[in-house]
Amino acid sequence: MSKKYQVVGIGNAIVDVLAKCDDAFLADNGVDKGVMQLIDTARATELYSKMGAATEISGGSAANTIAGLSALGVKTGMVAKVKDDQLGRVFAHDITAQGTHFDTPMIAADHSDETARCLVLVSPDGERSMNTYLGVSTLLTDADIDPDLMADTDWIYLEGYLFDSPDNQAAFVHAVELTKAAGGKAALTLSDPFCVDRHRDAFRELTTNHIDLLFCNEHEVVAMYGGTLQEAIATGANEVETLVCTAGADGAYVAHGGQVIHVETEATSVIDATGAGDLFAAGFLAGLVQGKSLDVCGKMGCVAAAEVISHMGARPEADLKKLFAAKGL
Amino acid sequence: MSKKYQVVGIGNAIVDVLAKCDDAFLADNGVDKGVMQLIDTARATELYSKMGAATEISGGSAANTIAGLSALGVKTGMVAKVKDDQLGRVFAHDITAQGTHFDTPMIAADHSDETARCLVLVSPDGERSMNTYLGVSTLLTDADIDPDLMADTDWIYLEGYLFDSPDNQAAFVHAVELTKAAGGKAALTLSDPFCVDRHRDAFRELTTNHIDLLFCNEHEVVAMYGGTLQEAIATGANEVETLVCTAGADGAYVAHGGQVIHVETEATSVIDATGAGDLFAAGFLAGLVQGKSLDVCGKMGCVAAAEVISHMGARPEADLKKLFAAKGL
Repeated sequence: MSKKYQVVGIGNAIVDVLAKCDDAFLADNGVDKGVMQLIDTARATELYSKMGAATEISGGSAANTIAGLSALGVKTGMVAKVKDDQLGRVFAHDITAQGTHFDTPMIAADHSDETARCLVLVSPDGERSMNTYLGVSTLLTDADIDPDLMADTDWIYLEGYLFDSPDNQAAFVHAVELTKAAGGKAALTLSDPFCVDRHRDAFRELTTNHIDLLFCNEHEVVAMYGGTLQEAIATGANEVETLVCTAGADGAYVAHGGQVIHVETEATSVIDATGAGDLFAAGFLAGLVQGKSLDVCGKMGCVAAAEVISHMGARPEADLKKLFAAKGL
Repeated sequence: MSKKYQVVGIGNAIVDVLAKCDDAFLADNGVDKGVMQLIDTARATELYSKMGAATEISGGSAANTIAGLSALGVKTGMVAKVKDDQLGRVFAHDITAQGTHFDTPMIAADHSDETARCLVLVSPDGERSMNTYLGVSTLLTDADIDPDLMADTDWIYLEGYLFDSPDNQAAFVHAVELTKAAGGKAALTLSDPFCVDRHRDAFRELTTNHIDLLFCNEHEVVAMYGGTLQEAIATGANEVETLVCTAGADGAYVAHGGQVIHVETEATSVIDATGAGDLFAAGFLAGLVQGKSLDVCGKMGCVAAAEVISHMGARPEADLKKLFAAKGL
């Protein structure tokens, strides 16, 4: 009997606050370009007061992937923690509106922290510098992992950023155990090279023992396994059944069964790189649950990633199904 | 001595919640296409629960105009009422971040109503259907009109939508009296044909006795003065010093001193018509405070309007100053 869900994501529930800025603004305000930095309430308040007029769009790495999967007709669920505040209700609305099952209990309105947000500063070259106030998102615990949901999905998709909270890590392991006990599989994304640096041992332990499919980019794979890009991919391929590594304009590498496939991507003008990795994972997983070959999955990942970097925001605007059909995927 | 501000807007403080939908969705949910409807809390909750994943961007008709003016280097202020909640802080941040003076006292966090929002449903043809929950925005009273601010601006710019609240109307009249007593001038936008229907007599009384510059579109001018478009413009031109009427793809008409100038606009593909009238007013007023002739002001209005309808959201994304320079304006 087929399961009710094909992919259930577990990750941070974040509302992105996107504003354009120039490189001087990043330098003047001590923002490291192109990476994700965790910030506290005081820093969030200060940086927000200095940045330009913004747009709010639901984000979160795994949540972006799940949004992309839903847009592709995949049956999805999401586990993530918001507060019962205005931004929390925005996140819950947006993920539900696209057909994703989402019923993680909200943190009560009287809690002193707020729903997580990410101040995304987009440079003229389309690079994004992310400053994340995690707020109540870190309060996700193993009590939020619904055993019935884990038992009723083909895949769970885990966001590496969650490793930044010990409670979140426990939730991860619990979710993997429940899913795999019911015959499901587990995918993980490494999220960010600095996140890998912070949690390398825990990531490798989890990946080697519990993960079937690992997503990463060229910086993350080297941070995780060391050596050159190809050496790192080879090392990782020995520790996980399937390793998928994106490489920007160079496309992606898919390592499986002792082979490494190189998938090329088409040139795209970058307006805002936010969500490229997240949507790559969406395209790839959509192919996988539809039984496509790994090279076709890789191409679907590249097409979905190209769509999301062509506009502001990390969730798809175009009709991805039509886009895939037009490319014969 | 020149004044500190060139244009101060008085209007609703609204956060737009934009989502795409098809025409069937509008019909199924009783939404009148292309107009603004006021909705209560229950209707806002119901409609939001049914609409798709959305993007939040600060809006409000006069506030959009002021944002456009700021982007053009005009010295601006804004008077509008938000609550001290997350969306209220978003509105305050965005208007301040672009250089606009904004210090209208916020409604306290324990008030039962929330900051105003407008559920904007954007159809495939770019038409927008607006569903506005006014919330605390209606609580703007004459006590919020700072006499020093009114005395220190060349122009005030009034949003007709404010006539939907009696307290707001009192604030309007108070603001006009203070501004004009200090030698300033007053502009009004009619906002919406149904808003004109609701308040025709009050609008005509205010316009005839206190307004120097009236903005409207082809539907609003006919609702206000009756007859054909040209008859309505002629009638209006007898009651106000300058009347500016936009006419969609047909450009705009500027009536002043017994003459009517027709200003043509260039063809533009419409992604989202939200803010077209607001940005027309911004371009026109920017020309006016820079001492341009009325036909050039009209062209500046058309260029600014064309920019804002070429993307989602009612605030300019491109550099309007460069755009004007490129067109020789």
